[in-house]
Amino acid sequence: MLRTHNCGELRIENLNNIVKLSGWVQKSREFGGMTFIDLRDRYGITQLAFNLEVNAELCEKARKLGREFVIQIEGIVIERSNKNKNIPTGEIEINVSKLTVLNASKTPPFTIENETDGGEELRMKYRYLDLRRNPIQEKLFLRSKLAKEVRNYLDDSDFIEVETPVLIKSTPEGARDFVVPSRMNEGQFYALPQSPQTFKQLLMVSGFDRYFQIVKCFRDEDLRADRQPEFTQIDCEMTFVEQEDILNTFEHMMRHLFKSVKGIELKDFPRMDYADAMRLYGSDKPDIRFGMEFHELNDVTQNLAFKVFDEAELVVGICAKGCASYSRKQLDALTDFVKRPQVGAKGLVYAKVNEDGSIKSSVDKFYNDEQKQAWADKVGAQKGDLILIISGNVNQSRSAMNELRLHLGTELGLRDKNTFAPLWVTDFPLLEWDEETKRFHAMHHPFTSTKEEDFEKLETAPGEVRANAYDMVINGVEVGGGSIRIHDRATQEKMLSLLGFTAEEAKAQFGFLMDAFEYGAPPHGGIALGFDRMCALFGGSDSIRDYIAFPKNNSGRDVMIDAPAPVSKEQLDELFLAQKQSK
Amino acid sequence: MLRTHNCGELRIENLNNIVKLSGWVQKSREFGGMTFIDLRDRYGITQLAFNLEVNAELCEKARKLGREFVIQIEGIVIERSNKNKNIPTGEIEINVSKLTVLNASKTPPFTIENETDGGEELRMKYRYLDLRRNPIQEKLFLRSKLAKEVRNYLDDSDFIEVETPVLIKSTPEGARDFVVPSRMNEGQFYALPQSPQTFKQLLMVSGFDRYFQIVKCFRDEDLRADRQPEFTQIDCEMTFVEQEDILNTFEHMMRHLFKSVKGIELKDFPRMDYADAMRLYGSDKPDIRFGMEFHELNDVTQNLAFKVFDEAELVVGICAKGCASYSRKQLDALTDFVKRPQVGAKGLVYAKVNEDGSIKSSVDKFYNDEQKQAWADKVGAQKGDLILIISGNVNQSRSAMNELRLHLGTELGLRDKNTFAPLWVTDFPLLEWDEETKRFHAMHHPFTSTKEEDFEKLETAPGEVRANAYDMVINGVEVGGGSIRIHDRATQEKMLSLLGFTAEEAKAQFGFLMDAFEYGAPPHGGIALGFDRMCALFGGSDSIRDYIAFPKNNSGRDVMIDAPAPVSKEQLDELFLAQKQSK
Repeated sequence: MLRTHNCGELRIENLNNIVKLSGWVQKSREFGGMTFIDLRDRYGITQLAFNLEVNAELCEKARKLGREFVIQIEGIVIERSNKNKNIPTGEIEINVSKLTVLNASKTPPFTIENETDGGEELRMKYRYLDLRRNPIQEKLFLRSKLAKEVRNYLDDSDFIEVETPVLIKSTPEGARDFVVPSRMNEGQFYALPQSPQTFKQLLMVSGFDRYFQIVKCFRDEDLRADRQPEFTQIDCEMTFVEQEDILNTFEHMMRHLFKSVKGIELKDFPRMDYADAMRLYGSDKPDIRFGMEFHELNDVTQNLAFKVFDEAELVVGICAKGCASYSRKQLDALTDFVKRPQVGAKGLVYAKVNEDGSIKSSVDKFYNDEQKQAWADKVGAQKGDLILIISGNVNQSRSAMNELRLHLGTELGLRDKNTFAPLWVTDFPLLEWDEETKRFHAMHHPFTSTKEEDFEKLETAPGEVRANAYDMVINGVEVGGGSIRIHDRATQEKMLSLLGFTAEEAKAQFGFLMDAFEYGAPPHGGIALGFDRMCALFGGSDSIRDYIAFPKNNSGRDVMIDAPAPVSKEQLDELFLAQKQSK
Repeated sequence: MLRTHNCGELRIENLNNIVKLSGWVQKSREFGGMTFIDLRDRYGITQLAFNLEVNAELCEKARKLGREFVIQIEGIVIERSNKNKNIPTGEIEINVSKLTVLNASKTPPFTIENETDGGEELRMKYRYLDLRRNPIQEKLFLRSKLAKEVRNYLDDSDFIEVETPVLIKSTPEGARDFVVPSRMNEGQFYALPQSPQTFKQLLMVSGFDRYFQIVKCFRDEDLRADRQPEFTQIDCEMTFVEQEDILNTFEHMMRHLFKSVKGIELKDFPRMDYADAMRLYGSDKPDIRFGMEFHELNDVTQNLAFKVFDEAELVVGICAKGCASYSRKQLDALTDFVKRPQVGAKGLVYAKVNEDGSIKSSVDKFYNDEQKQAWADKVGAQKGDLILIISGNVNQSRSAMNELRLHLGTELGLRDKNTFAPLWVTDFPLLEWDEETKRFHAMHHPFTSTKEEDFEKLETAPGEVRANAYDMVINGVEVGGGSIRIHDRATQEKMLSLLGFTAEEAKAQFGFLMDAFEYGAPPHGGIALGFDRMCALFGGSDSIRDYIAFPKNNSGRDVMIDAPAPVSKEQLDELFLAQKQSK
């Protein structure tokens, strides 16, 4: 090794040891005849001391070192006169006797400090320098630790990690696949997996009983701010289980992770069915770090005088505690917020419950005091509180009110990054109607089973059928989701037919799975957890990007290596392909 | 859970417990009024008992169950009258009171037994059934255990696991890339990584100090029997190291794996430089479970009478202990073996050292007894031994003799699958000359550094330059290889230029890496171990295929899911591509 110790391990106990260290020059300073250099590596910082009087040549050499130079030194561990209690090596320094420059460094394009002056684009181009910064390194260490603890927990619970293939087959269901042309099979393509779904189900058919994999998955979707074309999932499946078993297993896993990685003891996860989540929070992933639940106000607002409410499918209100003091300007800002196209409400009605008990609203000309008091009673508003009301069709009003609630929660400081409020959302609908294609789509995927009691409705009222499907939600983030699967051929065929697959399409795409179901397929179910997002959640960040060593930008590009890039005509020829001009 | 216990855990201590089990019907048999069923799951087998006299209906139901049916039973644990000492559950059985069929099974296309009657093709098509067989399951459990122990060891040694991207950039160096057309970047392509080489080097530039990843890699090569288009590597890199540090670290890792997974204590790994390996074994991955080293016989065979030897660049012999008794037929078979085109020798000369000390050879008319005795002395042949000699040009003779040595080693039972003989082969040449393109290629890859003392020869005698490159070899299998890397821009540019890259090509392909080398890149090096092959080695198999859950066949096809497959014209249109007919 080019070192006897790393830069984080020397202590007062090592006094008088002759040591060799290697690392990066973090900074240097001169102090009288002395030059001090902070030498950095992954493990810490050790101070090097050079004395101009004792060894002028060496000291001059040290003074010429620039930031981020890589050096190796030899010297003796001595006690510092001016101790630094903030770092573990702060009691000692190295009296350097030999200095070797291992590599020079140009001045980095941005400062390698906890707070840097580099913009997003520059840091992405020089990602290897951005990765030198402590906050980013810590995020990747957190990721590594989380992966390790996931494996520890699942291994202890008899799960076996199995690698499933990356070169598979394109399926039209779901998001768009990345495809990979085959050179050995003319006119044919592999696809990169959006998830190992069918393979893990086959592993259950094979009797592996409990499977997991921390695995890269791929989706060729238009990227939103926080989506990556390649992402990592903790993919799991269990045999001979019911929904309750999956929920218990992975709730315990998450509690283990919070305990072992963050030292936080989480309580039992509450459960809420999808219908309640939508009714109370207007979202299938409610942030329950704070209350401010929805209250449906149709019966106390309609058929009185206000036409807007009368014509609404839903009138829904929330109570913002202590916000009666909001100014006109603040209320206008909230109205502007809900009227933004992304939120989509037509307007916002407010009612302040004043300290004298009177209620002042934006619709005072339509409602009397008694009527407004009924709203306050319904939403639980007391003196000093603010009632906010949105109306319209059910889905849009709930969606807009959800945005408003989250916005207010943030504004009021109710969404502390160090508080964690987990939740299971259960009983998702099996299907959702797509207006564009005029048919039902699987809300989860086509392998999800129905609630037994809803099975008969598949024919009569497919939209009402509830699935054995569940999401794990923490702080309003969907951490993962799963389902109990169909495990017999007849039901799987029926489901695919309901989703618009012809018998031929069903066979071509999923024939192997349905065949497998005929050879003793056991009941099974599972879950997949988004690992990138989970890391960001544990790290207290909204963005997943810094938890990925080499992320892509919003155009799916790696700007550091400059990929994707053109390939040669010879490469395309071998793949039986030609470029086509876009119109 | 659909069970209170699994099929492997009930013991005599559980007597009189009321239990619920789920599993597969392995087999059933009738014995007087009793029906016995072996119920199987991943964990073991438990015997179920049904008594026709006590419950005729239930017993009749049990008698109708076919092999591989999935059932759930309830019953009481009772002591077996006829105990089976061969299985851990053999002292008990379940007196069944309730039986539910969870899923029926058609008759499998081959038997689900340790030894099956299914051919390779059928088992690949029904891989999910093949995976039910114990020997295959055990291989995947071994793989999972190995991965876990690799992670344990590396984690304990301060390595951090970092995921590198799968969608990267195509590089012309090395094997052929799989490419992935980009929908968002017209005319551009990602490539799937052949290894995370440049990314792990950048992580060292970033100061991660010790990195590892168990990672899928991809090569679009014509498949040989034991190659897969996607394969798994244990990829590692370390900073501030010399070759010796890498060798020590990964030798210790391998010893940890043998100890923890197989209970075998390996001794220190011997080391051999490339030149010696070629001279003594004719291979850069010698199987040193047995001796039979090569001896160069030019000085005792040439310029005497035999023109074939006289004209040979190399005359090389081995001594097969105790094989003087080989019959004419056996010797003819060996001659046929070396003359096969894959082996490529022109012929084989033998000399038997008889029990009376006389030597009988196939070239007796050219050599006298004294001359032949000199051969025997040289190869160390004693009474009863057989000398085998091949001649020709150096490379071909060594290569053919290597094949012969391995063949004989197998024939003589010297290559026991339960004996493990590891070896480091070091000092590989940096470059190899390619006759076809008339230029040098990197033997390892273009990032490999030279031995310091050979650096000057880069200009004058590039073919003689030795690299800081090493392979780990066990039982003649190349388990892994690595090198100390170049870490400065000037040397890297020089290397790429030597390999025929223009300055523009070098910049376009590896500019980001060379840029990185200018910002304080530390000395670093690493290794990559072939995980599929390592699993096969630990499992005592020659083939890697059964250690991969869903392998592809020799045409790169997954015959179970039928991939690759055509995609729609719409998909190609979105990617700006068109099919081109092959000629």
